[in-house]
Amino acid sequence: MTYCVGLRLNRGLVFMSDTRTNSGVDNVSTYRKMSTWSTPGERSIVVLSAGNLGTTQAVISLLDERSKAPAERNPSILEAPTMFQVARLVGKTLKEVIANHAQSGDTAESTFDGTFIVGGQIAGMSPRLFLVYPEGNFIEAYDDTPFLQIGETKYGRPILVRSYDPDMSFEAAIKLMLVSFDSTMKANLSVGLPLDLQIYEQDSFELPPRTRIDQEDAYYRSISHGWGDALKSALDSLPDFTF
Amino acid sequence: MTYCVGLRLNRGLVFMSDTRTNSGVDNVSTYRKMSTWSTPGERSIVVLSAGNLGTTQAVISLLDERSKAPAERNPSILEAPTMFQVARLVGKTLKEVIANHAQSGDTAESTFDGTFIVGGQIAGMSPRLFLVYPEGNFIEAYDDTPFLQIGETKYGRPILVRSYDPDMSFEAAIKLMLVSFDSTMKANLSVGLPLDLQIYEQDSFELPPRTRIDQEDAYYRSISHGWGDALKSALDSLPDFTF
Repeated sequence: MTYCVGLRLNRGLVFMSDTRTNSGVDNVSTYRKMSTWSTPGERSIVVLSAGNLGTTQAVISLLDERSKAPAERNPSILEAPTMFQVARLVGKTLKEVIANHAQSGDTAESTFDGTFIVGGQIAGMSPRLFLVYPEGNFIEAYDDTPFLQIGETKYGRPILVRSYDPDMSFEAAIKLMLVSFDSTMKANLSVGLPLDLQIYEQDSFELPPRTRIDQEDAYYRSISHGWGDALKSALDSLPDFTF
Repeated sequence: MTYCVGLRLNRGLVFMSDTRTNSGVDNVSTYRKMSTWSTPGERSIVVLSAGNLGTTQAVISLLDERSKAPAERNPSILEAPTMFQVARLVGKTLKEVIANHAQSGDTAESTFDGTFIVGGQIAGMSPRLFLVYPEGNFIEAYDDTPFLQIGETKYGRPILVRSYDPDMSFEAAIKLMLVSFDSTMKANLSVGLPLDLQIYEQDSFELPPRTRIDQEDAYYRSISHGWGDALKSALDSLPDFTF
């Protein structure tokens, strides 16, 4: 499994993804599930992936045109005129990869499923955030549902639903996302550290370096340990039931 | 779907279940999923159910021997010598009901699935808490995992994992469970009010009246509204991320 979140704030976008992939419980590896494309000053795009690793890696390679020699590469994701067209391109590529794998033997199509979060901004337009389904169709995060999750979404959802605020700073949003990830990792072995973090500041049209958060990260440890106590205090602050 | 929790405390057992059943999203009903049996002074048993309503109602009726005329009823669940044997009886009955339904046409056995939480105490022995699977086998809640959930378990799990304490009072445990249920109901339409609540005080060998908590319940409303603010405060109490 996997857990990835894309969050739309008034000041930009925040993306976080775990790195654990597993086939069963004894074939566990670490893979980055976050890919970025950027033309400084013109566009910045972040893609998070969940699902079959063969499928998602194939999609990313095709989007990146890694099927061509380096000199000939000209990723079409950097040429799509709008973020809507970027999401369509991801969806089309995903659908083709799944159909291609499914034809070649296994008829259990779901085995090759993948899901993507696609977000970013192109000059002259607002930042946008999409969730792309295996069928190639997609939904966009509007104000009513300003964050998107893929993978093992349930454990970490209540805290996002309750505490998200579009006016949040990046720093507070990252804290919220770490709590959501920590709750998920405490409950599900298939989601695991390290985490990848990418922010995108609205109208900056550039992506700052990606941050990797691992087991030794002092801030992550302080959140993971502190959250248990903070939750107990929160619970204590509410009145007990009376018979 | 359904959400039910059984909690083992040092002072006894607490059970909570929702009441929503649905077949699709437009055939929604309210059914009690909590059944109790008691011989005052000798034993008290509580059973929570999740899954196909036809299956779980058949199991409860068979355990209650509602297949017999009232005068002839002598529920075997009140005669089993240990709680282990009670759990075996529930498992055996469940397995038979599922097998019976599956034989009569539908081969998709999972359609008839059910899962039960069984808890209680028999004089001379400790309180025990079990989770019974559709296959008729079961697990018991020991000190390492002192609570059991069935149905839509994921949304409400993190708060239980973080805040459960075996020394809790019943009043604090009910508050914790209400937060867990509220988080689930906010995320999943198939879990809904009213809730049924039953406590069992260790060595009392009697069950106090069941409590029903509905939309109008002032305490539930104070928890549901207060928890959002308490969570925000908890999050605020942790340090923000720094780049």
